[in-house]
This record gives sequence, C-alpha cells and structure tokens, in this order.
Amino acid sequence: MKPDVSAGVLLIGDEILSGRTRDANLQQIAEFLQPIGIPVREARVVSDDSSAIVEAVRAMSAAHDYVFTTGGIGPTHDDITADCMAEAFGRAIDVRADALAILETWYARSETEITPARLRMARIPEGASLIANPVTGAPGFQIENVFVLAGVPKIARGMLEDVVHRLEGGPVTHAVTVRLEGVREGDIAEALGVLAGDHHSVSFGSYPWFEEAPDGGLRRGVALVARGHDAALLEQLRPQLEALG
Amino acid sequence: MKPDVSAGVLLIGDEILSGRTRDANLQQIAEFLQPIGIPVREARVVSDDSSAIVEAVRAMSAAHDYVFTTGGIGPTHDDITADCMAEAFGRAIDVRADALAILETWYARSETEITPARLRMARIPEGASLIANPVTGAPGFQIENVFVLAGVPKIARGMLEDVVHRLEGGPVTHAVTVRLEGVREGDIAEALGVLAGDHHSVSFGSYPWFEEAPDGGLRRGVALVARGHDAALLEQLRPQLEALG
Repeated sequence: MKPDVSAGVLLIGDEILSGRTRDANLQQIAEFLQPIGIPVREARVVSDDSSAIVEAVRAMSAAHDYVFTTGGIGPTHDDITADCMAEAFGRAIDVRADALAILETWYARSETEITPARLRMARIPEGASLIANPVTGAPGFQIENVFVLAGVPKIARGMLEDVVHRLEGGPVTHAVTVRLEGVREGDIAEALGVLAGDHHSVSFGSYPWFEEAPDGGLRRGVALVARGHDAALLEQLRPQLEALG
Repeated sequence: MKPDVSAGVLLIGDEILSGRTRDANLQQIAEFLQPIGIPVREARVVSDDSSAIVEAVRAMSAAHDYVFTTGGIGPTHDDITADCMAEAFGRAIDVRADALAILETWYARSETEITPARLRMARIPEGASLIANPVTGAPGFQIENVFVLAGVPKIARGMLEDVVHRLEGGPVTHAVTVRLEGVREGDIAEALGVLAGDHHSVSFGSYPWFEEAPDGGLRRGVALVARGHDAALLEQLRPQLEALG
C-alpha cells in the first residue's frame, strides 16, 4: 500500500466547456477510486485542441500517480486524443494489430464494415496497453500512468473495470456527512473551527444548501462533511457534528 | 469588440473532487458567457489547498482574458479562497470597510450578530472591487481579471449579474445541434469529415448517446453539433447534418 496516492482527471471536449453537456465522468471516476484509496486531487477540462491536451496531460502525468482522461477516442475527425497522447509521450502511433483484432471480432458479430473511420479507433500509441471496452468494443489504452477512456459515461465506467487491477491504492478516505437544517454557516463556523483544530487528521468541510420547501418557501441549511482515514474516529465525531445544528 | 476572447473557470473545493457533489457551476457560467461572446476554453477543479489554488489561478489568469472562480468564500475555516487570491497577486488582505458595511446592513435586517466567523467574509484583497451577492449578502470580488464567486450555484448565478457589465466579449459562438437516432459514429464519420473539411470556420462535434427505450431495449444515436460565428451558415448546414442520419 502506498502512503500517499493521488489521481488527476482530464476531461477532453468542447461539449463540456460549452455547457451543452454537464460532465458525469469526474464524479463517477472519483466514486470508483475512493474505495481503493486513490483520491482525485485535480481535474481539468480542455477543448478539442491538440496543444491544450498535450500540455495538460504532461503536467498532470508528472504531478499525480495516475491520470484518467475521458473523451476523444471515437472514429470522427474531432477524435484526436490518441494522437495527442502519442505526442505527449514521444511515441509513434499507428493502427495496431491487437486493437484491430478486437474491432474485427466485434464488428463481425453485427456484420458491420470496418471503414477507414472505424479503423481510426485501432490507432494506439506504441507501447501502450489496451483497456477493454465491454460496451462498444473499441478499446481504450494505458500509456505510462495515463488511462485513456471513452467520453460516454457508460463506456468509461465499463473500461474502469479493466483498469482497477493495474492500480495500487493507499489508505482509503472515509467520509461522514451530517445535514443540518435551519442553520447558516456563520452560526456554526466557530464551533466547527474548534473541532477542526482538535482533529488535525480529519478534514472538515462545510457546504451551505438551499432548496424549495413544499409550501414554496425556501429551506436552508449546511451539510458538514468530515473526511479521514480513521472510520471509527469519524463515527465518533458524527454526534458532535449533529450537535452543531 | 475583441477579436478573440477566452475565459477559464476554476472550481475550488474538495466536495467536487471527491464526487460528493456534482458541479453545476461550469455549465451555468459557460451558458451565461456564451451570448456575450466569451467562450470558456479551460476549466480546472482543485482541492481546498492553498498552493494548488494559488498556482492554478496564476496560470489561468495569465492564459485567459477572464477567469471565474467558485467556492471557498464563506465564513468557515476551510474558506481560504480570498487569502489565496491575495497571495496569488501579491496583495495585502484584511477586513475592508466597504465589505463590512454590506454585511452590517444585511445582517441588521435579520438581527443576526456579526461573529468573528462572519467577519471573515469581509476580508477582501487590497485593490479588488466587490461583486454584489443578491442572495446572501456577503460579496464576491474582482481582482485583476479574476472574478471570485460563491460556490453555491444560486449565489454564483446571482453574482454573475453584477459582473456582466465588466466584461468585453468577442463574436458570439452559435451552435446548431442535430440528434440522429439509430446510427453509430462510425456510420457517419467519413461524411462528417468531408463536411468539416469544406467549412473550416465551423467546428463540428460528434457525440454518441445511449438511452433506455420504453420497452427496456437500448436506443443509440449520435448528436452532431456545429459551432461557429455565422448563424446563417449554421442553419444552412442543419439539413446536411440531418441528411447524415
């Protein structure tokens, strides 16, 4: 077990930056990695732009134990992620026999022709290892400490299953959440600060919330989250958090 | 009008990286900026960590015309964004009379005491200009080209209204979306590539989708998005995109 592990997530695609699509991959990757002790410490979203992708993946690969990218590995002209990864790590890239064999088997079942566009999905950087795609066949790949996944959340989730055994996690971060209603952050800030000062191994977060009540009025409150490696300690803290309300 | 404008969005907070909260601010900021001609070109999510925040805001402030941060400006111990912004730009920070006056007026209405914790929300870097908060009073602020907003989406949205007149946009990016059903990306990739090659002023994106049909089966298709400054041209392209289905 590694003492301190961190991951970065790189979301690739104009559609997230434009606001057209609300990303779901950051959350599902974080939730997938949490039980194996790999916290996500940074995420970036970049557009479908080669230099932006190359620069981001180099910086994140150097800064974190593992990096997960999503998006840009399909058959269309705007799918440039594989070429960017090859460039970022100084590798050659071409159609690879192992990836092509997967596509041939997959498309033979549906009697689908492997067009030049579909062949693009067998372009894999030299030395990368493939990641199985149980949903639509076309594989992702791992290059150094970077795991290149599809952008469609269902496919990315499927690919994570083939990645988990390649990861070495650290101590698991547990969390206890207490939802207080009818209080404001300012009401509980001092007491929460004291609690945080008394427990340096625990990270305390405070998140105000607002929602509409059934009568049309506004409800408000604060969600308190305590995070740390010692699950028993967190459970001991739960009543103290509840008592702040 | 500026010829080429870009914005970055910096989301600050452990709760997004941990997967506990799915971010809504990137999407709403992008949707707010689109009609005024400011495309979001990069987003980053960092944890509640001073050095990570300082490093990210410096890099993004240098790379983009405008940067929008969300989160970390409340009254609790984990709200460190204002101090990080002061550090990033080499400014002093203390309770400022203009911000304190806003809090005093706001809290007087609800007969709420201004505790030392609430006073933290009047800590504003030297030379920054305030951003009105119509929801809960405590202001955000602008420092150089960085707009520091609250993390609660409703509050961040309210603050944007006080920011819009400080921004100089470029040409508006329009988008046309066509949703095709029953086709796969590989079926239309060649034709889409030809269309993209014929129209270099337009950016074409292709996004596969999957959803459950009412009979429990799986539906699939591709959403095609054409983006560019010439709305009339995009409308001319719409039937050509539909014809790919």
